[in-house]
Amino acid sequence: MITVNVDLGERSYPIRIGADLIARTELFAPHIAGAAVTIVTNETVEPLYGEALRAALAPLGKQVSTVVLPDGESFKHWETLNRIFDTLLGAKADRKTTLIALGGGVVGDMTGFAAACYMRGVPFIQVPTTLLSQVDSSVGGKTGINHPLGKNMIGAFHQPQAVIADIGTLRTLPERELAAGIAEVIKTAAIADGAFFEWLEANIAALNGRDPDALAHAVKRSCEVKASVVAADEREGGLRAILNFGHTFGHAIEAGLGYGEWLHGEAVGCGMVMAADLSARLGYLDEAVRKRLVALIGAARLPSRAPALSDTRYIELMKVDKKAEAGAIKFVLLKALGQTLVTDVPEDALRATLAACV
Amino acid sequence: MITVNVDLGERSYPIRIGADLIARTELFAPHIAGAAVTIVTNETVEPLYGEALRAALAPLGKQVSTVVLPDGESFKHWETLNRIFDTLLGAKADRKTTLIALGGGVVGDMTGFAAACYMRGVPFIQVPTTLLSQVDSSVGGKTGINHPLGKNMIGAFHQPQAVIADIGTLRTLPERELAAGIAEVIKTAAIADGAFFEWLEANIAALNGRDPDALAHAVKRSCEVKASVVAADEREGGLRAILNFGHTFGHAIEAGLGYGEWLHGEAVGCGMVMAADLSARLGYLDEAVRKRLVALIGAARLPSRAPALSDTRYIELMKVDKKAEAGAIKFVLLKALGQTLVTDVPEDALRATLAACV
Repeated sequence: MITVNVDLGERSYPIRIGADLIARTELFAPHIAGAAVTIVTNETVEPLYGEALRAALAPLGKQVSTVVLPDGESFKHWETLNRIFDTLLGAKADRKTTLIALGGGVVGDMTGFAAACYMRGVPFIQVPTTLLSQVDSSVGGKTGINHPLGKNMIGAFHQPQAVIADIGTLRTLPERELAAGIAEVIKTAAIADGAFFEWLEANIAALNGRDPDALAHAVKRSCEVKASVVAADEREGGLRAILNFGHTFGHAIEAGLGYGEWLHGEAVGCGMVMAADLSARLGYLDEAVRKRLVALIGAARLPSRAPALSDTRYIELMKVDKKAEAGAIKFVLLKALGQTLVTDVPEDALRATLAACV
Repeated sequence: MITVNVDLGERSYPIRIGADLIARTELFAPHIAGAAVTIVTNETVEPLYGEALRAALAPLGKQVSTVVLPDGESFKHWETLNRIFDTLLGAKADRKTTLIALGGGVVGDMTGFAAACYMRGVPFIQVPTTLLSQVDSSVGGKTGINHPLGKNMIGAFHQPQAVIADIGTLRTLPERELAAGIAEVIKTAAIADGAFFEWLEANIAALNGRDPDALAHAVKRSCEVKASVVAADEREGGLRAILNFGHTFGHAIEAGLGYGEWLHGEAVGCGMVMAADLSARLGYLDEAVRKRLVALIGAARLPSRAPALSDTRYIELMKVDKKAEAGAIKFVLLKALGQTLVTDVPEDALRATLAACV
C-alpha cells in the first residue's frame, strides 16, 4: 500500500492506494468518530463492493446504513442529492455521522456535497472505484451537483477525512471508463511533470491492460501532483486553475451533448487535443510536443475529434464556464510538458481551433 | 453610525448600524469587487426598499439584477433557493458576482447559502431589514434552508463581506416581528451580559416603542456579544452552542407547528421560558432570576406558553435537532445572568418542564 498525504493544515488527509483495500477495517477505523455511518453508492457499484465495505465496517460496531443512487452523470442533480438528505434525516443522523462515498466521481461529488451541507458539515470518506475518481475527484475537496444551465455550478469545497483508493476495483471498470481515467492522468503529467509524461508514453499499454503496478504508480503520481497544487491553492485562487487544462473545451462538449453522453474524461481527453491545438496555433507550444500529446491520447483510446456543434454554441457554452470572468473565457494553455499559462485568447484563433478539431 | 467588527482573520467583516444606511453608496462600494450584483429580496421588502438600494448602487456602475422571492419561512426550501441559481446562471453570473440579501432572516439565510454554493462560493453582503436578522442571522455566517424533516438542516458556514443594518427599516416592521427580534436580544443578554439584561429591563418600553437610539444600542450590544462568541468558535465547536439558549425548545415548537406558524423569535422567546424552567427545576438557576427572565419576555409581548403538542412529540422533535448527538438532546441551561452550561438532562425533569410550560 502506498500513502500520499494531502497537506492542508488541520484539513490534511491521507490517500491510501493499493489492491483490495476496501476489505481492511483498520484503514477506516481512525477516520470514523461518531456512532453512525451512511454509505452512499449507486446501483452499479453496490452489488460489486457494497457487501465488502459493510463487512470491513462491521467490527467497528457502528450503525451502518446505505443509500443506493441511480448511476450516471445525468442524475447528478438536486433530486438525487435530496435522497441522501432524506435518508440521513429519516435515520435522525447527527453531526458526527460519517458519510462514505463508494463509487466514481458522481457519487463522490454528491456525497461530498451532501456532507458539506448536512447540518452545515459532517465528515466523509472517499472510496473511489473508478480510475478517474481515484486520480481526480478524490483530491482537492471539490464537491457539487449540476444545474440544467451548467456543470458543477452548485457545490462546496469540503475535504474528506481519508481517501481509500482500492486499485482492485479497477478490474470491474468498463473499458471506456478506464480510458476516461487515463485522460486525467495524461493531463496531470502534461501540466506538471515531463518525466511522468514520458513514463506514460512508455507504459500506456500496461495501463490499458490494467497492470496493477502500473495503475498504482499512475494513481500515486497523479495524486501527488494534484495534492501539491491543491495544497498551494486550496480555494482555487490561481495556481489550481492549471488543473483545468482541457476542461474549458471538455465542459463545453459535455454540456453541449447533454451530461452523460460523453464521459467526463473522454471530454477532457478531446479538450486537451483542442487546448494543445490552440496553444500551438498561438505559438506557445512546439508542434512536436503537440503531436506527442495527441498520440498519447490516441494510444489511450480516447476521442480526439470534438462533437459537431457550431462555433457559436461552443463559445456560448464556454462563456458560462466557472472560470470565465465577465464573459472572458480563460484558457489553460501548454508552453511545454510541465509548463502552462492561463490566458484569454483572440476569438479568431479560437474559431480556427474549433474548425480544426470539430 | 456605529461599527461592530466581526474578527475572523481573513474572513473578518464590519457590521454598520444606524438609520437610513441603505441609501449610502459609500458603505457598499468597498465590498463589491466584480462587475455584477444580484439583489435577493422578497415580495414584501422589494416595494419598500428595493429602489433605495438600487439607487445607492447606481453610482458604482455595476450590472444589477434583482430576484424577488415569496415571503416567509415556509418558502425557505430548495425550490426557492433554486430560483436564485436559475437567475444567476440565466444571467451568466461569474465567480466575482456579489449577492446582496435585502430582507429578514429567511432572505439572508437563503442568499448566504446560494452565495456559499454558487460556483462553490461567491461574495455576499447582508442588508437585514428585521430586528431579528440584524441582531442574529447577520452575525455568524450560518446559512441554509429547511428540509421537511428539520429546520436549517441543509446549509453552510459562509461569512458576508459586510452587514449593513439599517435601523430605519425597523419603522415598517410588523409588531410581532419586532417582538421576535427582541427575543433574540433578550437571549443574548441572558447568556452573556447581566448589565445588558438590566438595561433591557429598564428600556423594554423604548424598544417596544421603536426608539431609534434604544434600537441601535440593542443591535450594537447584541452584535458585539455574538461577534465575540463567533470569533472564538467560528464553526460551532463548543462555546458557540450557548447562542442556542431557548433554541432546542424553540426549534421543536417551530417544527411541531409547521414552519411559519410561530415566528422564530416567538418560538425562541417561549423556548427561553422553558429552558429557564428546566434550569431552575434542576437546581442550576435561582427562582428570582427565572422570574425576571419570564417577566422580561412577557414585557416584550412574547408568548410564554408552549403550543399543545404531546411530550412524546416534543422529545422526538428535539432528538433530530442539529445539536443532538447519538440521540442525546443537548440543552443550554442558565446558571445565572451571563452564565450558562450545556448538558443533557434527565427525561423526567424534561417531562416536568413540558408539563409546566405547555
